Amino acid sequence: MTGRLSVVGLGPGNSHQLTPEADAIVSAAGALFGYGPYLDRVPERAGQRRHPSDNRQELYRAEQALNAAAEGETVAIVSGGDPGVFGMAAAVCEALDRGPTSWRNVEVAFVPGVSAMLAVAARVGAPLGHDFCAISLSDNLKPWEVVEQRLEAAAAAGFVIALYNPVSRARPWQLERAFSRLRTILPDTTPVVFGRAVGRQDERIAITQLSAAQGNSADMATCIIVGSAETRMIERPGSCPLVYTPRGTARPTA
Amino acid sequence: MTGRLSVVGLGPGNSHQLTPEADAIVSAAGALFGYGPYLDRVPERAGQRRHPSDNRQELYRAEQALNAAAEGETVAIVSGGDPGVFGMAAAVCEALDRGPTSWRNVEVAFVPGVSAMLAVAARVGAPLGHDFCAISLSDNLKPWEVVEQRLEAAAAAGFVIALYNPVSRARPWQLERAFSRLRTILPDTTPVVFGRAVGRQDERIAITQLSAAQGNSADMATCIIVGSAETRMIERPGSCPLVYTPRGTARPTA
Repeated sequence: MTGRLSVVGLGPGNSHQLTPEADAIVSAAGALFGYGPYLDRVPERAGQRRHPSDNRQELYRAEQALNAAAEGETVAIVSGGDPGVFGMAAAVCEALDRGPTSWRNVEVAFVPGVSAMLAVAARVGAPLGHDFCAISLSDNLKPWEVVEQRLEAAAAAGFVIALYNPVSRARPWQLERAFSRLRTILPDTTPVVFGRAVGRQDERIAITQLSAAQGNSADMATCIIVGSAETRMIERPGSCPLVYTPRGTARPTA
Repeated sequence: MTGRLSVVGLGPGNSHQLTPEADAIVSAAGALFGYGPYLDRVPERAGQRRHPSDNRQELYRAEQALNAAAEGETVAIVSGGDPGVFGMAAAVCEALDRGPTSWRNVEVAFVPGVSAMLAVAARVGAPLGHDFCAISLSDNLKPWEVVEQRLEAAAAAGFVIALYNPVSRARPWQLERAFSRLRTILPDTTPVVFGRAVGRQDERIAITQLSAAQGNSADMATCIIVGSAETRMIERPGSCPLVYTPRGTARPTA
């Protein structure tokens, strides 16, 4: 007998942005797995087993959860934001792909959520209003030169760029390096949005220009949006400016 | 006296994936604006005025809504998915940018939702599991050569690609042309996911390979995800295959 594994997106971090679907599945699970701070967002329920694990233990966590589901449990793994965007969904698939064939009989479901870049964008207007990309700056699992190639290709082709995993204790210099590369391609005035812990009590939003963007202005809880050459700001009296990328473009990019 | 305008994402189309935040704001609005089929998703409420408009009337709709808010109404514009991803958020910003300065005093809020690509990805695994981009195939507001440049740049740099607005009555050939361009860069076996009306009663999901992907397999309600060269499929007995993109990459792309 096998159970069921759901890979659930908790959204940005407040209950108003948690979908009823995700809430129901997390509530009904017999066992919960996840990175500790994400699990802490889920209210305690009697009879529900909780298995917190550390950051960077994604594959181990996925294997533990698949094991429990294969033994008949109703299991949920929680991710912040959307589990399919630099969250636990890919780690679960990797574990399934490498693991015992019996795991392929486990019923697996993926439950989407509002990802960080969407929540950050909504705070300032519509910076992702036209073609855009999402890049993880982590070089734990890919060479840094691939990160730089993708940054340059995206900026040159006119994509707005959302940066995930911009910095960590073990990766202090990557974000500044990314800004440096982007400055060789994009105008100095390109809007840059830093969105930290959006939707949570310690939320912090900052809007600046690429020439002034600093690599030490972010932490692990920050998602950064770098505009394209077409991204604009609208000043408003008494309110924060709006940042948006128009829906169309008149001219081919270089 | 000015009112308030909220630009609200309804998510993929079922109430289980609508956030409580979006639900509350739409319920409390005095006037609702939106593309007819999106407005139809919102339950009728006594005393709430509804202003449906046609597709391709985004700027007009945004102006009408800003006008109503400037006159003191509590207004919501609804978008399918997330309003910041090829939805109404950019159109509202454009209207604000071009419109009378008095509109800049209107309180404007953007309310994120689960966008189509996240919902489609969740149905099949984790195809957006690593760096990815979103491209609108519509050449109503940008030249087609820009679309092709972006497709080629994204595929060559190793991004998974989510295609929005793949086809319409007025744009019948663009998707097939996009597949043709991508076939010159990506392996024949690259997984391609067609996700139509995800979360709704007429949902249809199809998984194929790039060599077999057909431009006439999609309509306006379809979001398509084209893998990178690293995207993989996991066959499962008695279930659909899973499609995922591993979290890391070992080799620099060309």
